[in-house]
Amino acid sequence: MRKVAVIGVGLHRYGKWDNITSYSLAKEAIDGALETAGLEWNQIQSGWCGHTGLGITAGARIFMRYGKTGLSITNVENASASGSYAFRGAYLEVALGEFDIALALGIDKRHKSLFKNPRNPNKFRRPSPIIQKFAQDARKHMEKYGTTVDQLAMVSVKNHYNGSLNPYAQFQEEITIEDVHNAPMMDNPLTILHCTSTSDGAAACILASEDMVKKLGISKPVWISASVSKSEFDPKQDSRDITAVTAREAYKKAGIEPSDLGLVELHDAFTIEEISVSELLGLCPIGEGGKLLEEGATAINGRIPINTSGGLLAMGHPIGPTGIGQVSEVYWQMRGEAGKRQIPNPPKYALTQMIGFGGTCLIHIFSR
Amino acid sequence: MRKVAVIGVGLHRYGKWDNITSYSLAKEAIDGALETAGLEWNQIQSGWCGHTGLGITAGARIFMRYGKTGLSITNVENASASGSYAFRGAYLEVALGEFDIALALGIDKRHKSLFKNPRNPNKFRRPSPIIQKFAQDARKHMEKYGTTVDQLAMVSVKNHYNGSLNPYAQFQEEITIEDVHNAPMMDNPLTILHCTSTSDGAAACILASEDMVKKLGISKPVWISASVSKSEFDPKQDSRDITAVTAREAYKKAGIEPSDLGLVELHDAFTIEEISVSELLGLCPIGEGGKLLEEGATAINGRIPINTSGGLLAMGHPIGPTGIGQVSEVYWQMRGEAGKRQIPNPPKYALTQMIGFGGTCLIHIFSR
Repeated sequence: MRKVAVIGVGLHRYGKWDNITSYSLAKEAIDGALETAGLEWNQIQSGWCGHTGLGITAGARIFMRYGKTGLSITNVENASASGSYAFRGAYLEVALGEFDIALALGIDKRHKSLFKNPRNPNKFRRPSPIIQKFAQDARKHMEKYGTTVDQLAMVSVKNHYNGSLNPYAQFQEEITIEDVHNAPMMDNPLTILHCTSTSDGAAACILASEDMVKKLGISKPVWISASVSKSEFDPKQDSRDITAVTAREAYKKAGIEPSDLGLVELHDAFTIEEISVSELLGLCPIGEGGKLLEEGATAINGRIPINTSGGLLAMGHPIGPTGIGQVSEVYWQMRGEAGKRQIPNPPKYALTQMIGFGGTCLIHIFSR
Repeated sequence: MRKVAVIGVGLHRYGKWDNITSYSLAKEAIDGALETAGLEWNQIQSGWCGHTGLGITAGARIFMRYGKTGLSITNVENASASGSYAFRGAYLEVALGEFDIALALGIDKRHKSLFKNPRNPNKFRRPSPIIQKFAQDARKHMEKYGTTVDQLAMVSVKNHYNGSLNPYAQFQEEITIEDVHNAPMMDNPLTILHCTSTSDGAAACILASEDMVKKLGISKPVWISASVSKSEFDPKQDSRDITAVTAREAYKKAGIEPSDLGLVELHDAFTIEEISVSELLGLCPIGEGGKLLEEGATAINGRIPINTSGGLLAMGHPIGPTGIGQVSEVYWQMRGEAGKRQIPNPPKYALTQMIGFGGTCLIHIFSR
């Protein structure tokens, strides 16, 4: 197995972009990734496209319009984790030696399709089953562990603060705990500001083999130390949690402990998710995620910053791009290039976690 | 890079299966693959699902209904080559050592969607752009190389004969050259019997690492010697043909010459394709594909049998499954288990070629 690094990233700001074509979104992300890596398009040997709503052969349509160079093209889809799986596909090929340089693209136009937009209450006269599920999770967590509504709201406040520092975020306005409490109620205790918003966007990463990193003279590559993919277990036979199991295997592969992490980008489609996932990743004991947050440990200048990008709550959730957007944040933070939201000591290790609706989980660990 | 073998295959017969659910189609293919390999579902560590029309998270819905074992799940789509790319994904993971046993599933219900059904002339009052393109290719080939309409028709006759010997084929009736000539004309010189039919179906393969092949005591594994993926070149800058380039790289990786092949399963959506692809794969000089066929070289008992399964023309073309159906045929033929259509000397090397509409090409080479 060859070592593989991320050597370039690019994004189109997430948002509602009715008048921008999918191709234009993708082009801006690919342009950015190529520019960061200092590469030309004809040096890309393989392109993976993660999307959920652009129809068949989306990757071929985008990549071949960008330039017909003969590169390998593969489309992948795993709901919210589509971009993450595109990234994993590119990683597999480069690690195996099939290619030296590969690109992963996440692209979607989702602000008015697939999932109803939880930021638009008119679309939610009745709470959707997804929100009901997470509202129930929140109520259970509060009852069992004493997590408070304030703590849940503080996830959104923190992530919106981070988003206010991220030029690619859909939501760049700070909010207060009161704002969260006073927003329209979706399903108790989750108001609309506890929920992500689906959006439009694009994100791209370029991956390269160790030999190619040297050959190209890339400074500060961000290495991929683990890529672990799982799906849910049958609760009747196996009570293990998919995220906890995936994380343990990823830590083992990367040879690190949770305490080594300096950044975690995780799937915060709902505030309760950030709290429970922080526990399942081993960042704190089970039940203490609310406390971890309230202590400030997960803030940009905390012990273990979470979702410095703004996360799904504030950076936004265009679905296909989301997982690659997480990698972009890791890339910038590890290289000390995250601008106003830079973690004071750029992380030595970082983790990205994405859940695909329907039961898949993908975790990547990065090192520098 | 680890050696990877195909150790089990399963199919649901291709056809028009209005009253059979996607899950039932998939289950029959997975059941067959597990039975052939002598494995239980909980031994499958990763599942790749290639499809074009089952909506998001199709693989998760199918695999997790089959059994929630925690296996990794990835959906891929590359038009007609979707199944082939699912196979490649499983291959990449096993070759890299991410998993020891992986399953690739191709599944679709396409007999009345996506492409109009060329076997139902009522649906084609005007020829579709795809048929027009291949009819033009046929006319050019005839004009430039003297290929005859009889030779084109003989592709369909041969493949329908092969299909008549394949219990999984959609079309199991022999036809004559006259039948082909007298069938409804789609676009000169292609009558409807020169064209494939989209269909419903499922196909599954199980792949395992060399160590696992030994551990399981698998007899007669079919090894994967090359997996090469490309997309089209810009005709203004690069006149190379995608299939020819992909094939050359695959031969090099496998360390063989075209003359070493004992079986080729290729993308014969139209009769002209089988003739031109046989040339591009180097099975005969350019322009002599018609002659190669007329001499009987591509028949089951010929020098280089092509599409012994019946190919897309007679086995059918459910899209997602098609590429994995090709691998199944290779598996049976190499193991001497192809029944009435068995090649007298089971091939030592075989090749599968699939084109994904939109410009992708994927070639696999197998050895025993």
